[in-house]
Amino acid sequence: MIELSRRNLMTSTAAALAATAMPGIPARAAVPASGKQAPGVYRYKIGSYEITAINDGTWYLALSDKFVKNASLADVQKALADQFLPIDTVPIPFTAMLVNTGSKLVLIDTGTGGQLAQTAGTMGANMAAAGIDPKSIDTILISHFHPDHINGIKTKDGAKVFPNAEINVPAAEWAYWMDDSKMNAAPEAARGAFLNARRIFSDIAGEVKRIEPGKEVAPGITSVAAYGHTPGHTAYSVASGNQSMLYLADVTNNPWLFVRNPEWQAAFDVDGNMAAETRKAMLDRAAADKMIVQGYHFPFPASGYIAKTAKGYDLIPVMWQPSPS
Amino acid sequence: MIELSRRNLMTSTAAALAATAMPGIPARAAVPASGKQAPGVYRYKIGSYEITAINDGTWYLALSDKFVKNASLADVQKALADQFLPIDTVPIPFTAMLVNTGSKLVLIDTGTGGQLAQTAGTMGANMAAAGIDPKSIDTILISHFHPDHINGIKTKDGAKVFPNAEINVPAAEWAYWMDDSKMNAAPEAARGAFLNARRIFSDIAGEVKRIEPGKEVAPGITSVAAYGHTPGHTAYSVASGNQSMLYLADVTNNPWLFVRNPEWQAAFDVDGNMAAETRKAMLDRAAADKMIVQGYHFPFPASGYIAKTAKGYDLIPVMWQPSPS
Repeated sequence: MIELSRRNLMTSTAAALAATAMPGIPARAAVPASGKQAPGVYRYKIGSYEITAINDGTWYLALSDKFVKNASLADVQKALADQFLPIDTVPIPFTAMLVNTGSKLVLIDTGTGGQLAQTAGTMGANMAAAGIDPKSIDTILISHFHPDHINGIKTKDGAKVFPNAEINVPAAEWAYWMDDSKMNAAPEAARGAFLNARRIFSDIAGEVKRIEPGKEVAPGITSVAAYGHTPGHTAYSVASGNQSMLYLADVTNNPWLFVRNPEWQAAFDVDGNMAAETRKAMLDRAAADKMIVQGYHFPFPASGYIAKTAKGYDLIPVMWQPSPS
Repeated sequence: MIELSRRNLMTSTAAALAATAMPGIPARAAVPASGKQAPGVYRYKIGSYEITAINDGTWYLALSDKFVKNASLADVQKALADQFLPIDTVPIPFTAMLVNTGSKLVLIDTGTGGQLAQTAGTMGANMAAAGIDPKSIDTILISHFHPDHINGIKTKDGAKVFPNAEINVPAAEWAYWMDDSKMNAAPEAARGAFLNARRIFSDIAGEVKRIEPGKEVAPGITSVAAYGHTPGHTAYSVASGNQSMLYLADVTNNPWLFVRNPEWQAAFDVDGNMAAETRKAMLDRAAADKMIVQGYHFPFPASGYIAKTAKGYDLIPVMWQPSPS
């Protein structure tokens, strides 16, 4: 037992008196709940480059038996439940990536532009919180032409969000989505994406640079063909000093479904078989090289490592660090 | 292939001309790297309560064969490597927790106060980033008297950091750490913690409320005996509406070591056997109830679920959400 000194006892008495409410002085008002999340921004270093993962919110997609084309609804629900997630929705977060090479600011994918789900469209606010002016972006690299990756290029009114950026897109994406014969041959449900690509790109077509895979498209950043999810779907590897990382874009959607079960095919895949082959090849490479990967639909900060498991792979999220390292 | 319209070709030519550097006008200056992490703050709801996890940085402890008392160094290193972490250090993050009940702001544990590791002590800055004034804290609940939990009560100069807060500490902690006979009987290496407890508490002893386990110590918040790590180590459960969560404090240290291997005993445990029994019992309860747990030494945001596995348990981190829910 502790023995209270006389001084402490006196302090105690004084405190007890002070704690008695004074007449006429109301109790301190409660602080209201914030209701807001902290900025969805996470930074780390690759060599001398500073990477910033920038969240654009989450789309909560109602789960149906059509979301995974070749797995039972029960198996998909079990995969969600194993992660302590609700089994009636698939959370699909969006996280773009900014690379500061020291001389250039390179943005990879641009978010939904607030033009998709009500619970998405926070990329602009998160960039602002990170102190990044859209005017300072030098280069944009696009992985593919699905709306959650390209809509952020423009406001709803068609103004450029990143007015000083050179926009680079995979040539094979342009060839597919901007081709009217492909649009006319596509199922009705897919027409929206073709029309959306025209909305974004038609009036700036002359400024948009079309890039090939396997090229250094910005200092230290190389385009990597990752076809299947879409015909020209492109990943990007980033190398600086003796470190490198791989921006996987949509090589997998929600990792608790598609990293753990790489043969599962999402409804969004244009060519599901090719997407699965690409997925397995790229996850294999990431696991072998123990490199950080950034997945556009991974849980924020969307950064992790890939481990090989008995039946597939697993995502090991990076451990949050209090300073970029 | 896309056919470029005449207008687009002209735009393209104009763009090519514009891209040519103008004499006398330098290229835009590169934006310097930030060098800073985004605030270590994460919010979620438990019923009508808003929880805020507040990071205080990370201590990178050089790994020796003494850190886990009853496992081989090789096994500990393998557990770190499985998580793609360096095998020469154990990262020990610190994350305190704030509960806004709607009428009270209750802070559980107070961080290192910048008085432990150089890579820790960011709690004040993170609170400021979250818009939380230390003066607005009504109640402090302390889990135990190790310095990384109590040092934040005071500045280095001995001033109170949370001047309006009622400080509640487990009675069994006070009885142990403030007892000179216990201090005199302790091994030399443990004396520092006894002296530090005196530095923090001696001159405010009369104001410090000593609490028993199994009591509602703040609205909806109940103290839970979790003895072993220290003699009075106390967890806290938080309930609002039909939801509840469990603040585990130091029931486990680094989860990739001690959640996955609950029988492992950390060098910091005062009674390693009792700590392991407590750990297994509380992880069992958390797994059975599928409740969110908050672990003081879990990777930020330090929030997750506990899953039972064949050999122990696993931590399933919460999926980051763009708004508290």
